[in-house]
Amino acid sequence: MMVAVIGDGFCSADTALLAEEVGRLLAKKGAAVVCGGLGGVMEAACRGAKEAGGLTIGILPGTSRRDANPYVDIPIVTGMREARNVIVVSSAQSVIAVSGRFGTLSEIAHALKLGIPVVGLCSWRIGKEGRDESQGIVPASDPVDAVHKALALAIE
Amino acid sequence: MMVAVIGDGFCSADTALLAEEVGRLLAKKGAAVVCGGLGGVMEAACRGAKEAGGLTIGILPGTSRRDANPYVDIPIVTGMREARNVIVVSSAQSVIAVSGRFGTLSEIAHALKLGIPVVGLCSWRIGKEGRDESQGIVPASDPVDAVHKALALAIE
Amino acid sequence: MMVAVIGDGFCSADTALLAEEVGRLLAKKGAAVVCGGLGGVMEAACRGAKEAGGLTIGILPGTSRRDANPYVDIPIVTGMREARNVIVVSSAQSVIAVSGRFGTLSEIAHALKLGIPVVGLCSWRIGKEGRDESQGIVPASDPVDAVHKALALAIE
Amino acid sequence: MMVAVIGDGFCSADTALLAEEVGRLLAKKGAAVVCGGLGGVMEAACRGAKEAGGLTIGILPGTSRRDANPYVDIPIVTGMREARNVIVVSSAQSVIAVSGRFGTLSEIAHALKLGIPVVGLCSWRIGKEGRDESQGIVPASDPVDAVHKALALAIE
Repeated sequence: MMVAVIGDGFCSADTALLAEEVGRLLAKKGAAVVCGGLGGVMEAACRGAKEAGGLTIGILPGTSRRDANPYVDIPIVTGMREARNVIVVSSAQSVIAVSGRFGTLSEIAHALKLGIPVVGLCSWRIGKEGRDESQGIVPASDPVDAVHKALALAIE
Repeated sequence: MMVAVIGDGFCSADTALLAEEVGRLLAKKGAAVVCGGLGGVMEAACRGAKEAGGLTIGILPGTSRRDANPYVDIPIVTGMREARNVIVVSSAQSVIAVSGRFGTLSEIAHALKLGIPVVGLCSWRIGKEGRDESQGIVPASDPVDAVHKALALAIE
Repeated sequence: MMVAVIGDGFCSADTALLAEEVGRLLAKKGAAVVCGGLGGVMEAACRGAKEAGGLTIGILPGTSRRDANPYVDIPIVTGMREARNVIVVSSAQSVIAVSGRFGTLSEIAHALKLGIPVVGLCSWRIGKEGRDESQGIVPASDPVDAVHKALALAIE
Repeated sequence: MMVAVIGDGFCSADTALLAEEVGRLLAKKGAAVVCGGLGGVMEAACRGAKEAGGLTIGILPGTSRRDANPYVDIPIVTGMREARNVIVVSSAQSVIAVSGRFGTLSEIAHALKLGIPVVGLCSWRIGKEGRDESQGIVPASDPVDAVHKALALAIE
């Protein structure tokens, strides 16, 4: 099982704690963490996963494996910048978005387009003009809830 | 000047009318239309641009130039599916989103990440949890307003 | 008709003369020049095409339209570095390689894989171990011969 | 250590034996095998690596993790077709080419462009017109020699 954890490369300490707990819980459940391989939420999720003995994969936007945070086991070097966001979510069976900015929003949108479930933890709200309700993102109340939902919704 | 017109490959007649008018107005102002090259909003925008003597560029997700709608002057064949969305907005100096679904949302997010202005016409509303206001997308009331704003906000 | 002209971003004056003549002849025949948009062979081919009133398209590896050489009419901004080589040849109906180094070789190989004819002018020789003959690249003796062959072989 | 094994998706039994032995030897040396994830040389290399308890990573061109051969531990889903070839070699510290056709040649060229060493086993010969010698590819006499050279030449 591979689950993507997505979020900003720079984040608050509170957000990092959430991401680290998500990574730890995924590893405990035997799921590999796939992410963008850089800092912030990505690093926190990888650190949590490694603390629990998990496997971490970082899909890097740049051209050097040394861009990966120290908790990435398998750095994938794309050199494709933003386009690597597509690969992060395509390689996952479900996605957990922890807060995040526009890069994260692009990953959420790509995942939903591709039919990959997205669970949001303090993350984006999206909707169409003229309709009030959010679409697509499954909200989670905390890391335990997020991991539970991501594993339950994961595609084959 | 190159302006992207983004939206769904399948759309209602009302949405197509909006996109066609956007394409026509861009061409009258001398701006080339860049889009994803397929049907729906993309085809309508290209048709409008060609009616006004404009130039149209289609960044195709598939592997054949024949995938382009008949109003595309210059088909660019990427074979990269969703990742071509990054190229559509990166190649534009501003973006007009006409309605759209998750693919369009991914383009909006990539544009905002890259600092390319996005004008929305009956399109997505986005915001972060815990904050009410929309972020990033400049709303337009009609095609005239959308084109006016896209040209005024365009980056160099 | 769109024909790719590929070659190194830094080249000798002799090679630039060849590329410029190729661009000029393509434009005279009504074919648009698609290239990687940078200097060297790419710039020379675009300059030749513009001198003859042609249309030029530059598929850029970086993230700024300003990376394009001054003779590019339509800059396509990919941000995907080497992966943009696939797009250069995929968007063409045939390819003319003028000298070139490893980047050019990657474009030749992608074109041949995709079934897009490649004409070589002072360019690579390729073959499999254990067999002597070259494979795939159609040799040309001069720019006139190269353009003649590229137009004759072009796919639909 | 990550080493790419590249070659055709359809190959002879002799070529498959070579690739399987390369995969086995890499795994014995503790190197992970990265490849394109499909059949032929890719599947043989993965099978060899798994027989020796190694780790295998498949960078897939399509949109489904189920495209991976059964010996891939970590499928990376790109949906980018030929452009994924860049990622295969960029993610490796050295490359072993086992025979191969034009897709393999594109990977060889991308690797050499990026400064990643390439060892060839019954693979391509490349040279520039007017010069006789091969360039860039380090020839190997058998799988033991190929793995020895790939590990010795690997970049950091």
